[in-house]
Amino acid sequence: MAGDGTDQRALQYEQTLMYGRYTQELGVYAKEEAARLRESGQRRSVSDRSRTLDLLEYDKGRCAKCRICTVRCQKFLISRVGEDWIFLILLGLLMALVSWAVDFCIAICLQAQKWMYGGLDSNVFLQYLAWVTYPVVLITFSAGFTQILAPQAVGSGIPEMKTILRGVVLKEYLTFKTFVAKVIGLTCALGSGMPLGKEGPFVHIASLCASLLSKFMSLFGGIYENESRNIEMLAAACAVGVGCCFAAPIGGVLFSIEVTSTFFAVRNYWRGFFAATFSAFIFRVLAVWNRDEETITALFKTRFRLDFPFDLQELPAFAVIGIASGFGGALFVYLNRLIVQFIRKQKAINRFLMKKRLLYPALVTLLVSTLTFPPGFGQFMAGKLTQKESLVTLLDNRTWCKQGIAEEFDYIGHSEAWKHPQVNVFVTLVLFIVMKFWMSALATTIPVPCGAFMPVFVIGAAFGRLVGESMAAWFPDGIHTDGTIYPIVPGGYAVVGAAALSGAVTHTVSTAVIVFELTGQISHILPVMIAVILANAVAQSLQPSLYDSIIRIKKLPYLPELGWGHHEKYNIRVEDIMVRDVRYITLNCCYRDLHNVLLIGQLKTLALVESAESMILLGSIERAQLQSLLSLQLGRARRLEYIRERAAAEKKRLSVISNPGSEDDGPRVSQEVRFQISTEESSFSPTQPIPQKPLKPALKRASVVERPTEIPTNSQDNSGIALKNLFCASPDTEALESPASPELRKMPKRVRISVVDDGDMEDDMTIREIAEWEEQQLDEQVNFNNCKIDPAPFQLVERTSLHKTHTIFSLLGLDHAYVTSIGRLIGVVSLKELRKAIEGSVTVKGVKVRPPLASFRDSGTSSSENEATELHKLWDRHKSMSLPREHTPSESDEKSQ
Amino acid sequence: MAGDGTDQRALQYEQTLMYGRYTQELGVYAKEEAARLRESGQRRSVSDRSRTLDLLEYDKGRCAKCRICTVRCQKFLISRVGEDWIFLILLGLLMALVSWAVDFCIAICLQAQKWMYGGLDSNVFLQYLAWVTYPVVLITFSAGFTQILAPQAVGSGIPEMKTILRGVVLKEYLTFKTFVAKVIGLTCALGSGMPLGKEGPFVHIASLCASLLSKFMSLFGGIYENESRNIEMLAAACAVGVGCCFAAPIGGVLFSIEVTSTFFAVRNYWRGFFAATFSAFIFRVLAVWNRDEETITALFKTRFRLDFPFDLQELPAFAVIGIASGFGGALFVYLNRLIVQFIRKQKAINRFLMKKRLLYPALVTLLVSTLTFPPGFGQFMAGKLTQKESLVTLLDNRTWCKQGIAEEFDYIGHSEAWKHPQVNVFVTLVLFIVMKFWMSALATTIPVPCGAFMPVFVIGAAFGRLVGESMAAWFPDGIHTDGTIYPIVPGGYAVVGAAALSGAVTHTVSTAVIVFELTGQISHILPVMIAVILANAVAQSLQPSLYDSIIRIKKLPYLPELGWGHHEKYNIRVEDIMVRDVRYITLNCCYRDLHNVLLIGQLKTLALVESAESMILLGSIERAQLQSLLSLQLGRARRLEYIRERAAAEKKRLSVISNPGSEDDGPRVSQEVRFQISTEESSFSPTQPIPQKPLKPALKRASVVERPTEIPTNSQDNSGIALKNLFCASPDTEALESPASPELRKMPKRVRISVVDDGDMEDDMTIREIAEWEEQQLDEQVNFNNCKIDPAPFQLVERTSLHKTHTIFSLLGLDHAYVTSIGRLIGVVSLKELRKAIEGSVTVKGVKVRPPLASFRDSGTSSSENEATELHKLWDRHKSMSLPREHTPSESDEKSQ
Repeated sequence: MAGDGTDQRALQYEQTLMYGRYTQELGVYAKEEAARLRESGQRRSVSDRSRTLDLLEYDKGRCAKCRICTVRCQKFLISRVGEDWIFLILLGLLMALVSWAVDFCIAICLQAQKWMYGGLDSNVFLQYLAWVTYPVVLITFSAGFTQILAPQAVGSGIPEMKTILRGVVLKEYLTFKTFVAKVIGLTCALGSGMPLGKEGPFVHIASLCASLLSKFMSLFGGIYENESRNIEMLAAACAVGVGCCFAAPIGGVLFSIEVTSTFFAVRNYWRGFFAATFSAFIFRVLAVWNRDEETITALFKTRFRLDFPFDLQELPAFAVIGIASGFGGALFVYLNRLIVQFIRKQKAINRFLMKKRLLYPALVTLLVSTLTFPPGFGQFMAGKLTQKESLVTLLDNRTWCKQGIAEEFDYIGHSEAWKHPQVNVFVTLVLFIVMKFWMSALATTIPVPCGAFMPVFVIGAAFGRLVGESMAAWFPDGIHTDGTIYPIVPGGYAVVGAAALSGAVTHTVSTAVIVFELTGQISHILPVMIAVILANAVAQSLQPSLYDSIIRIKKLPYLPELGWGHHEKYNIRVEDIMVRDVRYITLNCCYRDLHNVLLIGQLKTLALVESAESMILLGSIERAQLQSLLSLQLGRARRLEYIRERAAAEKKRLSVISNPGSEDDGPRVSQEVRFQISTEESSFSPTQPIPQKPLKPALKRASVVERPTEIPTNSQDNSGIALKNLFCASPDTEALESPASPELRKMPKRVRISVVDDGDMEDDMTIREIAEWEEQQLDEQVNFNNCKIDPAPFQLVERTSLHKTHTIFSLLGLDHAYVTSIGRLIGVVSLKELRKAIEGSVTVKGVKVRPPLASFRDSGTSSSENEATELHKLWDRHKSMSLPREHTPSESDEKSQ
Repeated sequence: MAGDGTDQRALQYEQTLMYGRYTQELGVYAKEEAARLRESGQRRSVSDRSRTLDLLEYDKGRCAKCRICTVRCQKFLISRVGEDWIFLILLGLLMALVSWAVDFCIAICLQAQKWMYGGLDSNVFLQYLAWVTYPVVLITFSAGFTQILAPQAVGSGIPEMKTILRGVVLKEYLTFKTFVAKVIGLTCALGSGMPLGKEGPFVHIASLCASLLSKFMSLFGGIYENESRNIEMLAAACAVGVGCCFAAPIGGVLFSIEVTSTFFAVRNYWRGFFAATFSAFIFRVLAVWNRDEETITALFKTRFRLDFPFDLQELPAFAVIGIASGFGGALFVYLNRLIVQFIRKQKAINRFLMKKRLLYPALVTLLVSTLTFPPGFGQFMAGKLTQKESLVTLLDNRTWCKQGIAEEFDYIGHSEAWKHPQVNVFVTLVLFIVMKFWMSALATTIPVPCGAFMPVFVIGAAFGRLVGESMAAWFPDGIHTDGTIYPIVPGGYAVVGAAALSGAVTHTVSTAVIVFELTGQISHILPVMIAVILANAVAQSLQPSLYDSIIRIKKLPYLPELGWGHHEKYNIRVEDIMVRDVRYITLNCCYRDLHNVLLIGQLKTLALVESAESMILLGSIERAQLQSLLSLQLGRARRLEYIRERAAAEKKRLSVISNPGSEDDGPRVSQEVRFQISTEESSFSPTQPIPQKPLKPALKRASVVERPTEIPTNSQDNSGIALKNLFCASPDTEALESPASPELRKMPKRVRISVVDDGDMEDDMTIREIAEWEEQQLDEQVNFNNCKIDPAPFQLVERTSLHKTHTIFSLLGLDHAYVTSIGRLIGVVSLKELRKAIEGSVTVKGVKVRPPLASFRDSGTSSSENEATELHKLWDRHKSMSLPREHTPSESDEKSQ
């Protein structure tokens, strides 16, 4: 796997660009990569430290005390730098600055567009050109820039962060290049005025920031190299991302937890709060210093009345908003996925969009901005307003529909965009909702850094406003029956709608908190909560969340959640879903067994058992480790040694008769050998006592020699025959077996080259000899001494429930777990089986994954009987072995508990 | 352990009453209890189901179809009942009703006191009597009632819920009796007007409610019997408890998570939100229906101005409140613990309070109510006001200190209580804070159901008010430098202070959210967040949280959290803290080994290894299982069988010579035997090849025969000698070995009784014979066939970090974990070691727990060398065994992933 994985990965990498695929292997590779990085980091920090000591030595001569003092101060500072809170403050500060700067640039971009549009009001066509060209250029630039610099910066980033926080390291997702691409790409994308959001990318940007800061600070302190700590810091960074985007620290923490975590460590809670609060604080203080605000207040401050926010009888209307938002949210997720899948299929047909990557964003932008052109269709859907402006007007605490009867309200400021001489405000709102709905779903598929939260939020607010305005039109004097008249506040409905729809799309309830923090008012808490919960209930039963949908589309290595109603998960057991046919190696196996096992499966790790009879699980070994064992055994180095020994023996024996002539034409010999082997296949193998497998793929070695095969420990051993099969053999290359294939013809050349390369000892073995030697080597027993073994792989019991298995897998970030019964390996469960079981049982209520065997376990005694028979086996074996029993339990120290 | 555990537990039980102790064993017992309950529950539900079927059969005659339809409908309803949301709605509804009813009763109680006090205003002494007697009677009743009905209802309940949610089942904590005691006790305690809170007990009440509801609903559906589900529901119930107490759903969920969980499953998040929202909604709707409120609003609604809540320059003052609250919170926890410890010590000296359990509550109440007597000292500290009234006045948005210069504010309503003709409002506030501080700390130690959250909240509000009033006096025209005058709002400071102090005491940040929901205003979000975080930072570095403090006082089986700065936990490894001297049994051990192992330690589970040489871990066995194995082997039943066989053999052999006379005086023989054994000790044991242990404690058997020893499987086998030691032997009873001890004298009588009891076969063996027979039996090899073995105990590797170990232990609720190295058992880590390591490293920064051996592991290669040598051992062993190697890895099915 490690051998030919690289180019597979390179291929996958290409596919990732827009909505790519990952396979499981990427995760493993990434982990290895992380380990490598960690190691190099450690080495670096050690050298840093030694440098400091050198300095100390150097300056001993003049004012040594002063120097020592400085070094001590430095050390103290460094030890302080290691503290979490300093890191969190720095992170918060940085993110607040980034958020503010991005907002500032976006505002300038939008102002520039308005200015251009306003300046050209003499000619509608020129106006249209200006209105349309500006966003197309910005989006195209954003898409191109991101594509070139870091294609990982595309999209929201929350699905990737969710996967990373599960313990999978996605390569290149947390680099400086990605950071730059994401920030600049996001600014341009949002500056275009398209219905895109800032929140998802900010989660990613904050994580990038945390990762880079962590790397930067590891130059000073040692603690930054710890992986668990980095994961904790990433979780805090996600909170910072949401917090500094909306100036909503509490909502940020909760939203980030809901969106990225499966299990949340409460001890990390304060980190998120601390960093997000600091970040939100700085973010708002910057606005005060910039004279945008008088003091620190909410981002979209509302001024609803406090004494009587809503009547009890308005609650059904709020509930309706919630339920409708639930359906709307599910529809949005579905639509978004549909568009992505449609584009993918289209790609398969004509590849035009694929080749011209920037055409798709440009076309979408053109369509959207044409439709919002204010003198055109935009006049019916408040197209003039930016996203922020529309939200402000939607949350307004005045009623729009009453303008017919009361003159007090004359659509001051931006609100006049909603007024149209011919068209009712209701029609404008409905058009706005419908158009923005598909536009947002479409726009979020553009390959630029963008989120979907804010557009959805605005649509939700518009929907709430619509309901609110209808209610206000229906009950002009309010609902309350007592003397006092409390008119209905449509702005409150807008708040409820915004929280409900964004909650439905993201499957979170913390949007309620975000809404309170955004508006600065909590008076509508109960309607908001009710609507959000109803919306979640509806949406979760229909569709996955937007982020889970993207995870599925991108095929990220993530374990699905257990849904709302998951009763049946308590009844399915591991024995129902586990793979009983486990690949394993025994402690006393020979290299041939190793070879065979490696040839068959594509497993990352193999179980090491004591023996095939006892099946006692001793540990697990990584495939790469076994491959390196084999390559050592069959490697050129050992073979040369063998030749040397043989030559020495030969020399001894034939010290009289020397025969140097035959050694010169080695190349020609191997030329002949090629035909020998290809004919040998039929004549030789039937006489072999072992199965044909090890010989058969030997013919395929040429097909892969060209690939850059990398063998973990000693990559220069390219001439081993059986070895090569191992790294290269894959079931679908069987067709290459015919000797006429062009790859095969190149083989002898390769062999010669390797012979020529070797300077100090000539490889005079013919391929036949090599094959024989290898056969002989393969029969030796494996020596696991230098092999890295995981001595405690995770074990489950057959009767562990699916529910518990899911919990353990998500808690510990497992990839696979062995199922044992009193030390005996009886099965293995991997993420794949688990995912299948969960998804299967979600749809068909647990029937699908329950094999016929499962019914036996309900008898209750079967398991203990099993255990008994297994114990019997072990026991009988022991009796037959009759080991001495002199060792009694040690009684020296009183054990704890 | 299962044998003599019961009475130990009974003793512990007594100790629990006020601030009792638990030991680890209680947890195990509780788990067994839970398993037993679960089993009986299953049996019941099965019988229920069969009853339904019977009914169906019975009514087959007349209108069978109709019946079938009804049964189907019933089944459908039952399946619906199984849905989570129905359970959550019912729970929310119930808790809202309980909360409202309790509030209603408390209000009536407080009104009655006011009425009595007001009616007697002619005579101060009578007034005093009324003022004092009323709370004393109520508190005494509450304490007595709780004591008699369910002592578990005492106190907050949050520490216990925290422990229960960690997976430990505390007995009697979730019963109906406790529910009744808690609700009535709480109502009386709060009705007395003492500075006690409602929130902690409500968490417990909600959990009780959920547990009872779950039991009730398990009569209908099967899903309610699942343990993991019940834990999930308990977590939701805790949220409901806080939510319906403060009408704060979001804060409730967050607070309950912070206070009860270590790791939180995000998939349970919605449960808490759903139930808490519904509960809060009903709770507030009840208030509307009761005409207390016009519509649904916050509990302590504030009316601060929205446009300019606070100036940026006021932030330092808020920070000061936060830091001071941090110190105050730590002081409160310390004071509370000091009082408890002082009372305990006092008890040890004179036991007066201990005997008269109700005297302590009465005395404390007398002291507190005397000091708050309004015409007395109470006039200087607003003693007239109830807790709720003082909170309302403290959150008032008008400024008190300005009354000297501006006449606008004349202390209307309750606020006049703060005005005193001679004394400044600052003095009143300071006195209020100081007096309430110690009063609350003292009052929460009374053994009644009570929490400390609300009193602390009020003190915090008063402190914030004090700072706010000072600021208002200092800057009469506000701080803002621009034209507009924005006067300072002391009410905002009160909000900040309340959140900060309660956050400091409970170590939570979600008090911020509770404060917003309580006041209905979120405008002060940033000051509140800053103050709460600062308060937490200070308090967490000084003291544990109030709940952790109570957990330590009560010695509940709970693992401490990792603190704020826990860098060193990443560097400590399991090998540094594990116990290397593991008690284990081998697969081929004899009963004597079992006996010896059981005699030595007090472990709950023992490791089962393959053999003492290989040390391959096969599983773990519970002590009780081993005891039952031993008791089976040495039991009366087997002995009688042996006698029968011997008799049959005897009869065969001695069919000619019969000797019936010797069998009659069995009792007298055993009478003699007593002296034989007591003298035998010196003469017999030296000749024994085995260590003295098995014989020595044999003398002690009498000391415990009177106790109700229960042997898990066959409790009638009371006559085995070695067996009895096992269940009874404890190191501290060695003193009883002298034959003069009174317990020993009773021994022969017991033996005779057991002989007489046995009807069908007479036990004619002398004790000497029995001892011989037992010796012989002990040498047999153990047959583990009918033994319940945990086949996959949790395993760690030596190099697992302390941080990760803590995570795994808290995630999976482990009690102990074995440390293995390639299948070999090398150590064990239990909660005790882990706790020691965490607490040790918290204080001395990781030095304490690092044994000299630990330094070796830094070389990096030691571990792999270790592995290598261990592998060598295994390998060599295999070679010597030379097992056949015909089994090759199965290649039939392509493995997954």
